Amino acid sequence: MPEQLFSYQHLLEFTNAVFQKIGCSNEHAAIATKTLLSADLRGIDSHGIARLSGYVRLWEAKRVNATPVIKVIHETPSTAVVDGDSGLGLVVAPFAMQIAIEKAKQVGTGWVSVQNSNHFGIAAYHAMMALQHDMIGMAMTNASPLVAPTFSIDKMLGTNPICVAAPAGKEPAFVADLATTTAANGKLEILQRKNLETPSGWVQDKDGNPSTDANILKKGGALLPLGGDREHGSHKGYALGAVVDIFSALLSGANYAPWVPPFPAYVPMPSQQPGKGIGHFLGAMRVDAFRPADEFKAAMDHWIKGFRNAKTIPGEEKVLIPGDPERLFETERMQNGIPLLDAVVTDLSQLGQRFGLSL
Amino acid sequence: MPEQLFSYQHLLEFTNAVFQKIGCSNEHAAIATKTLLSADLRGIDSHGIARLSGYVRLWEAKRVNATPVIKVIHETPSTAVVDGDSGLGLVVAPFAMQIAIEKAKQVGTGWVSVQNSNHFGIAAYHAMMALQHDMIGMAMTNASPLVAPTFSIDKMLGTNPICVAAPAGKEPAFVADLATTTAANGKLEILQRKNLETPSGWVQDKDGNPSTDANILKKGGALLPLGGDREHGSHKGYALGAVVDIFSALLSGANYAPWVPPFPAYVPMPSQQPGKGIGHFLGAMRVDAFRPADEFKAAMDHWIKGFRNAKTIPGEEKVLIPGDPERLFETERMQNGIPLLDAVVTDLSQLGQRFGLSL
Repeated sequence: MPEQLFSYQHLLEFTNAVFQKIGCSNEHAAIATKTLLSADLRGIDSHGIARLSGYVRLWEAKRVNATPVIKVIHETPSTAVVDGDSGLGLVVAPFAMQIAIEKAKQVGTGWVSVQNSNHFGIAAYHAMMALQHDMIGMAMTNASPLVAPTFSIDKMLGTNPICVAAPAGKEPAFVADLATTTAANGKLEILQRKNLETPSGWVQDKDGNPSTDANILKKGGALLPLGGDREHGSHKGYALGAVVDIFSALLSGANYAPWVPPFPAYVPMPSQQPGKGIGHFLGAMRVDAFRPADEFKAAMDHWIKGFRNAKTIPGEEKVLIPGDPERLFETERMQNGIPLLDAVVTDLSQLGQRFGLSL
Repeated sequence: MPEQLFSYQHLLEFTNAVFQKIGCSNEHAAIATKTLLSADLRGIDSHGIARLSGYVRLWEAKRVNATPVIKVIHETPSTAVVDGDSGLGLVVAPFAMQIAIEKAKQVGTGWVSVQNSNHFGIAAYHAMMALQHDMIGMAMTNASPLVAPTFSIDKMLGTNPICVAAPAGKEPAFVADLATTTAANGKLEILQRKNLETPSGWVQDKDGNPSTDANILKKGGALLPLGGDREHGSHKGYALGAVVDIFSALLSGANYAPWVPPFPAYVPMPSQQPGKGIGHFLGAMRVDAFRPADEFKAAMDHWIKGFRNAKTIPGEEKVLIPGDPERLFETERMQNGIPLLDAVVTDLSQLGQRFGLSL
């Protein structure tokens, strides 16, 4: 794939300017930019700047409000529901996570369910906000229906990711960030560009037959829950995706199941809207609400070392800790730049031209 | 498989008497019995009365304390750490869940991490305690190492289950209870008895090669995380099992990773003991800490109906809701009795004889 390298700082200034041009306040533009580009830094290219045009199209379609009044509409000492006022999820989710963190400071843990939001970028960005406070962070979101539950042809769930971030001591933090499907949609897009087939267990066709066609979603097919099929535990991936939907949308009053609004602005809205926008769920647990943080972090270091030193299958270099690959990307890309595919560069250049900005 | 039917009441009286004979108080015996037999009722035969002899052997080995003083050793308004005093997990976990529920009544949610416990039966029993209070319940536990993380030969994690139970209105509750492996160990035991092979992606041999040998654990092999291999998302199952370990043991001070004590009393204890006993994590979230319970439950009913009405793959009768199969078992077995394999009946009869009890 032909691609070009851009410095993080360069993309940051461009993205920030685009968000300001659509009317975001300086503060919101800065938050949205940092959240969005954390995906590019961490190697999750499908969720980063490549989506910037998509967010702008949602704003044009009046589905994203660039000047939201984000507010708490219900709360208890350890919980809150946030109404995102149709704002960018990139801004709404950090707002909600900050509330979770403040509640955790007060009563040990904080849990915030969010309605009336939009796509929030990568879950890890939000969960990792907790780390600097010696807290465990959690982030989930629902998403538009691409996934067929076990035995279903109909697409009823999004790829509904879960992230859990836990601080360690001398070792880097543990950061598990996973779509509850066998493979995230971004993995399919990579195979499409390379004209490759998918492994078994990733997708099914419009009649529910197993498929390895990376373009099957465009032909009425579906992504499969983690596990792939019943025999390999797809009912577990389905159950986890369902839990994300319940926490993110049924607790908050957002849309759920097949009625979650699509990210592409050109895709029609679902026939029903049982709630508002899309939903997220953010959580923070203060480590020392359970035991002294130093003790916990020393145990995490011991745990991590144990896994790093596990004996590997021949041919595999080492056992990885969740978060390792993304952290290596972040270090490397912050230093050497972020590669963007030519198609993405063209798209961003055109976007910039509309606003008098050059990439 | 030759088997005999016993009424729930009959097995309840027998089990209760056994727990009393090893020295449990009347109250503890009753709780342990109800917890243990909930597995038999719900069709999780591997976790029910078939394990009763195993618990007694742990008591004989002085690894289970029949008269524990279970206590809270640290707490905040929304959290607690419980020391199980080496008691039966069947008793310790309901104690901890009750604390989570009380905290949720006070501040919206309650989260309890448990150290110094033993096997707690099925996770669903504990999580479902929250339902009658219009709360979402969660339960997790770590377990002795049978699972090789992605790329590993060494067994570093247990089957580490997660249960989430959420109340509905007119529909039955949503109850997702899943081991974070492709298949739980109990599934392997069933195949062993029938002399059948496993599907692909369930186990690997001692050198990390894919295997379909249902007896492979006895030959140095390992269970695989949900996903099976890297290409099918095993790093996600590994990450989820790791989260369970962190919440259950690293937050509480229990043993973790490959150092979790084994259930069979004849298996030597691990070389290190970085903590105390095994660990659990229990959580309760009051629904109306987020939105009115009636609204949430109506949305759950709508959600559930949507899934039940999804179009199925030809040959499949309907899309199931997590908890459906277990609930059907419970209704059927409460009415018609619980089938026990002849080998289990023999084992229980011998156990009874030792205590002057007849099955």
